[in-house]
Amino acid sequence: MTFTRTDLDFARELDAQDELAPFRDEFVIDDSDLVYLDGNSLGRLPKRTINHMRHAIEQEWGQRLIRVWNDGWIDTPTTLGAKIAQLIGAQADEVLVTEATSINLFKLAAAALRARPDRTKIISDVFNFPSDLYILQGLIDLLGGRHRLELIPSADTITIAPEAVGAAIDPDTALVSLTHVAFKSAFMYDMAAVTRLAHEAGALTLWDLSHSVGAVPVDLNGAGADLAVGCTYKYLNGGPGAPALLYVRRDLQEQLGQPLWGWFAAKDPFAFALEYTPAPDISRYRVGTPPMLSMKAIEPAVDILLEAGIDRLRAKSVRQTEYLIFLAEQWLVPLGFTIGTPRLADIRGSHVSIRHPEGYRINRAMIESEPPALKVIPDFRTPDNIRLGVTPLYTTFTGIYRALARIQTIVADRIYEQYSAERLAVT
Amino acid sequence: MTFTRTDLDFARELDAQDELAPFRDEFVIDDSDLVYLDGNSLGRLPKRTINHMRHAIEQEWGQRLIRVWNDGWIDTPTTLGAKIAQLIGAQADEVLVTEATSINLFKLAAAALRARPDRTKIISDVFNFPSDLYILQGLIDLLGGRHRLELIPSADTITIAPEAVGAAIDPDTALVSLTHVAFKSAFMYDMAAVTRLAHEAGALTLWDLSHSVGAVPVDLNGAGADLAVGCTYKYLNGGPGAPALLYVRRDLQEQLGQPLWGWFAAKDPFAFALEYTPAPDISRYRVGTPPMLSMKAIEPAVDILLEAGIDRLRAKSVRQTEYLIFLAEQWLVPLGFTIGTPRLADIRGSHVSIRHPEGYRINRAMIESEPPALKVIPDFRTPDNIRLGVTPLYTTFTGIYRALARIQTIVADRIYEQYSAERLAVT
Repeated sequence: MTFTRTDLDFARELDAQDELAPFRDEFVIDDSDLVYLDGNSLGRLPKRTINHMRHAIEQEWGQRLIRVWNDGWIDTPTTLGAKIAQLIGAQADEVLVTEATSINLFKLAAAALRARPDRTKIISDVFNFPSDLYILQGLIDLLGGRHRLELIPSADTITIAPEAVGAAIDPDTALVSLTHVAFKSAFMYDMAAVTRLAHEAGALTLWDLSHSVGAVPVDLNGAGADLAVGCTYKYLNGGPGAPALLYVRRDLQEQLGQPLWGWFAAKDPFAFALEYTPAPDISRYRVGTPPMLSMKAIEPAVDILLEAGIDRLRAKSVRQTEYLIFLAEQWLVPLGFTIGTPRLADIRGSHVSIRHPEGYRINRAMIESEPPALKVIPDFRTPDNIRLGVTPLYTTFTGIYRALARIQTIVADRIYEQYSAERLAVT
Repeated sequence: MTFTRTDLDFARELDAQDELAPFRDEFVIDDSDLVYLDGNSLGRLPKRTINHMRHAIEQEWGQRLIRVWNDGWIDTPTTLGAKIAQLIGAQADEVLVTEATSINLFKLAAAALRARPDRTKIISDVFNFPSDLYILQGLIDLLGGRHRLELIPSADTITIAPEAVGAAIDPDTALVSLTHVAFKSAFMYDMAAVTRLAHEAGALTLWDLSHSVGAVPVDLNGAGADLAVGCTYKYLNGGPGAPALLYVRRDLQEQLGQPLWGWFAAKDPFAFALEYTPAPDISRYRVGTPPMLSMKAIEPAVDILLEAGIDRLRAKSVRQTEYLIFLAEQWLVPLGFTIGTPRLADIRGSHVSIRHPEGYRINRAMIESEPPALKVIPDFRTPDNIRLGVTPLYTTFTGIYRALARIQTIVADRIYEQYSAERLAVT
């Protein structure tokens, strides 16, 4: 699709045509002087989560007490996993919600290395979220340094070429561990093609879906993917630090194991046997008692996504990121910005990085603006990326318009020079 | 202390003398036909937690959105750890709240084995919570089976003899990993004595404080303990599955590491460097983004404990477990029960196990009684333990009286025979 109009009326027309617009009303949005473009870091609070959590705290914990575990709570990792499975092309019994993404990555990477005992290479890329790389480095260290991590390079800082992937994977490759949509550039892999390359070489694949789930259609089964992890607090709006998802293809569940043998990974936790016997199914990939208040907040948020439908969300996301890039090209590129995200929608997730040498101060000016100036919340990713997340459940075209116009003003009028370059703890 | 009276008036007198009685009003307790004796499995909901969580959800997440992380949230694992440190004899910078107990145990056990590379033995005991044993078994398996786990036996199913501990620890012992207060029998180790034995042999100690923290005074520094983990949802009343605590003695923090190199264990997570550099302090033992709704619920609950004071709580707990055992001896032992808990308060935690061949059905009858009969909630631990948890913040002497009288009736009148022996998922 191509855009030609840079007037506010056009943005309003786009909103008027948007069949998903009513979903914005599902969220707590009291701040008309704020455009939130960070739903890819922390999704907004769904209205229905408020009462859901009051009930969870005051009735389920407060009144039912320990009995609540037998009211279905004990199975939340699997029942919630079954719901999320619908968003990522998986079977109901292939997905868990449990622990943090990094912990789940550790479990599954360890499982993969164990399943390929004669191989020594783990392939990842320079775009991967550092926590994923650190977890792989820590695992290699723990196992005595017999393995090595090789990172596929990027020629252009925005994409990874298919040939580079092909060149990296070889018969010594045990595991290909990649983030499906890159956290900085939003580059999106062809999951089926990479999985095919990995399988041809006899390697397993482990996908991090943190920037994919709820944002782009994912078809784990269709791609033949082996293993996956991902985050529930970004596009899934499951709440700050909500437990993560984990996927193991059904035929691998019993073949593989994982090294964190917590009691909920056991076949019968309440037998309290002194020797571990693994659960025969996906529960084998659980560990300890789940943090239930954080778990409970996920379900109403996932329901909203299922109601909206991932294909409709993707169509809107593509339209909105296209529109955002169009406005950035008109207004921001002349001011020294470059677009740090693929122009081709097929290989782009749902956020757009715009890059500027003064990116950090511009980002602070956007966040710290006081009324009547518009406040715009992105996040910043070193060295120069201002990351603008499009979350089609509640991002509007007029919001994108107003945000981009505000960035233009901040840079054109050198407003950012009044703001500190000092880094906050969380950027 | 010795008791002689088995009348209800006496229980009422004991409550009237109890200086901690007002703390019961800090909790949501709407159920006058229920005696809850399972605060050692899931603590009750503090009233102040309700508004604290509404604020966390509706204001902090809902309104502050991503900015909330810079409002102090990012440091919650350490700030909350500093509070809990006061309950366990640790310095403020020696304790974290993070992940689940089992995950933390894995981290610290791996750290200990790495620190004693020439040793192959891990010592635990047959009383340890199976999840702890499973985690150690899984770690041994992951490391190639070079280590072995040796369990100290119990001669009487209730206690572990000091000589048995001494006999197990030898110069090949890398780690002594024990639960301070046993989950079934409530046997409590002399932490200082065991730590001394371990250190004399050159081994490290790793204490699981799940049934200790908030229930008995713990003095990690005084005992010279090296490492500890523990649970916040039992006596700390932090909410179902709330994240766990982790302690590393200050001088060991930089010497040791842990194998789960998540981004929050890194020196500067927001530098997004491709190579892991560990944080120099206790943060090195963090992993991923914390599940903040579950984290937030812990703080108001810990505040209540600090206000009550652990020494006063312990004095009341001893009085209440003594009273409970006295009534059980009068009323239940004649009906075929045995006491599965040490009689000596010095080696007993804050719960009492009573054992009966029909324990499981008796436990179901207690829980499933309908008014006008009193409902009593314990939990059951295979094969025959009915575990009665005393949580001095809200357990009353009259509650203990009524609960024990009800158990007497259930057994004397064979009421339990009407209840199913079928095991529920969670017992």
